Amino acid sequence: MEEMLKKVFSGDRRTVARAITMVENKDPRRYRLLTGLRPQGSKALIIGITGSPGAGKSALVDRLTTEYRRKGLTVGIIAVDPSSPFTGGALLGDRIRMQQHATDPGVFIRSMGTRGSLGGLALATGEVAQILAASGKDIILIETVGVGQSEMEIMKIADTTVVVLTPGAGDSIQTIKAGIMEIADVFALNKADLPGARRMAREVRAMVETNCHGAPWCPPVVETVTINGQGVSELAQAIEKHCQYLSESGKLEEKRRQRVLDELSGTIVSLFGEWVEQQGLQQGPLRNAARRIAAGQVDLYGAAVAVLQGIFAGGFKEEVYYFGGQDV
Amino acid sequence: MEEMLKKVFSGDRRTVARAITMVENKDPRRYRLLTGLRPQGSKALIIGITGSPGAGKSALVDRLTTEYRRKGLTVGIIAVDPSSPFTGGALLGDRIRMQQHATDPGVFIRSMGTRGSLGGLALATGEVAQILAASGKDIILIETVGVGQSEMEIMKIADTTVVVLTPGAGDSIQTIKAGIMEIADVFALNKADLPGARRMAREVRAMVETNCHGAPWCPPVVETVTINGQGVSELAQAIEKHCQYLSESGKLEEKRRQRVLDELSGTIVSLFGEWVEQQGLQQGPLRNAARRIAAGQVDLYGAAVAVLQGIFAGGFKEEVYYFGGQDV
Repeated sequence: MEEMLKKVFSGDRRTVARAITMVENKDPRRYRLLTGLRPQGSKALIIGITGSPGAGKSALVDRLTTEYRRKGLTVGIIAVDPSSPFTGGALLGDRIRMQQHATDPGVFIRSMGTRGSLGGLALATGEVAQILAASGKDIILIETVGVGQSEMEIMKIADTTVVVLTPGAGDSIQTIKAGIMEIADVFALNKADLPGARRMAREVRAMVETNCHGAPWCPPVVETVTINGQGVSELAQAIEKHCQYLSESGKLEEKRRQRVLDELSGTIVSLFGEWVEQQGLQQGPLRNAARRIAAGQVDLYGAAVAVLQGIFAGGFKEEVYYFGGQDV
Repeated sequence: MEEMLKKVFSGDRRTVARAITMVENKDPRRYRLLTGLRPQGSKALIIGITGSPGAGKSALVDRLTTEYRRKGLTVGIIAVDPSSPFTGGALLGDRIRMQQHATDPGVFIRSMGTRGSLGGLALATGEVAQILAASGKDIILIETVGVGQSEMEIMKIADTTVVVLTPGAGDSIQTIKAGIMEIADVFALNKADLPGARRMAREVRAMVETNCHGAPWCPPVVETVTINGQGVSELAQAIEKHCQYLSESGKLEEKRRQRVLDELSGTIVSLFGEWVEQQGLQQGPLRNAARRIAAGQVDLYGAAVAVLQGIFAGGFKEEVYYFGGQDV
C-alpha cells in the first residue's frame, strides 16, 4: 500500500487507474488508500459540468481542457455515466471525441458508471476526485448528465458548478427548475451560434438577476460555441472569478468543511449499509425477522426499529421519534 | 390513524392521496400507517413498465388500464418521474394523456418524484404500491423511465416487469445491455407499425432464445401499436401467463420473501441514515469528528469506523473487515 500511495503521488498512470478501480469496485482496501491520500488531495480545483443530454458538455470539457493545458495546468476528467441500459451507447459515443487528450500525459480521463453504487455515486465520484488531486492534477473536471436527483448530488462535490444550456432542445426558461438555480455558479449557453441563442441568453440573464437580489455571487451567463472555441476562455475566466469569490469570502473553506461532514456521514451510512447487506445474505437475526414479517407475526417497522435498538449501544432509542416517542 | 387506515381500506381517494403524500414526504407517521396496511396489502399484482424515453410507455399503460378495466379489475398507476430539472416537462406532458382514466373511480393515478429520496425511491415506490394494494386495487402498474440504475431498482418490486422497446430510436440490439435481459419478464415491441419493426422483433426473439437456453421462463416478445390498441390484449395475456408461472413454480412466494428482506434492510438503513443526518445537523460527535478530519488530526475512515464502533453495542468490530482486520 505504501508503494501504491507513492506511485499515485508521483502521478503513475497505471497506479492511478488501479486506485480508481478499487474505489469503483468498493474494494475494502480503498479505505486505507484514501486515508493515505487525503493529506495531499485538497489543492486541486474541482469543477462540475452538468446539463441535459446533447447540450455539448463533452465538447465543452474538451475545449476547457485545451484551455487549461495551454496555461500549463494539468487536468483530470471524470465522466460520470448514469449507465442507463437504454442510453449507454449514445453517451459513450460522445466521450470518444475526448480521446484527443488521451495521449497527453498532463490529462487523465476516466469514465465512471453507477453499477451497484445506488446513492453512493456522489461519494465514489468524490473519492475518485481525491485520487486525481493526489496524483498532482491541478484541475478536476466532473461531467455528468443532469438526469435524476443522484446526478445532481454529484455537483455538490464541485467547488464551481457550470450548468450548460442550449437554445431550443427543450431547455426553455420554463423547464429550468429551481434546482438548477441552486447549483449553478456559472451558466454556459452553448451552441450560441444557433437561432434563438440571443433571446435565450437574455431570458437566462433576466432570470438570474431576478433570483440574485443582492446575493454576493450572481451566476454569469457565458455564450460558447464549441465548434470554434468561441467563449471558452471567457468561460474559464468566469470559473476563475467564482473561485476567487469562494476563496475571498471564506465560502471555499465552508464548502470544504461541509464536504468533509457529508463524506463522513456518507461513509458511515455506506459502511453500515454494507454491514446490513452482509447480514441479509446469511442466516441470522435479519432473515429471521424477515420470515416473521412475511408470516404476519411482527410488523416490518417494529422489526427494523428493534434491529436498530439491538445494534445501538445506547442513544438510538432516544432518537426514535418515528413512532411518536412510543415504544414498539 | 385508525380512522385513516379504515378509510384507506375502503378506498377513499382523498385519504389514499394523503397516505401517499405521507410516504413521499418521509413523514414519521408513515411507519405506523404502513404497519397497519401491511396485512391487507399483498393480494394485488404489481406490474412494472420500463423502457427508454419516448418508447410509448405511458400510452401502453393507458391501453393496459383500459384492458384491465374491461375485465372488471381495478387499477392503481404509479408514474415514477426521475424529476430531472432538465427533462421534467416532457414527462409531465406524456402523463397528461392518461387523464382519461382520471375520472374513473376504479383507477387511481399518482406521479412520484425523486426529491430528496436519493436511493430511497425504490423503497418509497414499494410503499406507495402497498397503499394502493391495501385500498383495494387489483393491479398496480408502475411506470418508470429506464434511465439510471436507481430507476432499474424500482423494477425489483414488481412481480412482472415489461420492457418496452421501439424500432429505431437507438434501441438497437447492440444497445440492449445485459441488465435488461435480467429484469425483463415480457418484452413489448411498441410502435410495431413502424418500418424496421419486423426485423427488430426477429432480432429480439433471437437474443431472448440465446439467453434462455433451458430456463424455466423465456420472455415472450409481444408486438404492440398503442394508436389502435393492437397487441394490447396479447400483452395482458403474456403478463398473466408469467404470473401463473411465478405462482406455480413457487417463484412468487420466493420473490415476495426477498422483497420483505429488501424492504426490511432498506428501512433499517434508511432509519439509520436519517439518524446520521440528524446528528450532522447539530453540534456533537459527528461535527467534532469532521472538524478533526478537516484539521488533519484524524483520518476520515478511521473516524467513520470509530463512530460506528461507538454506536454498536457489540458486533460491529467483528464485522470490520475494511482495514483487513486491523484496528485503527
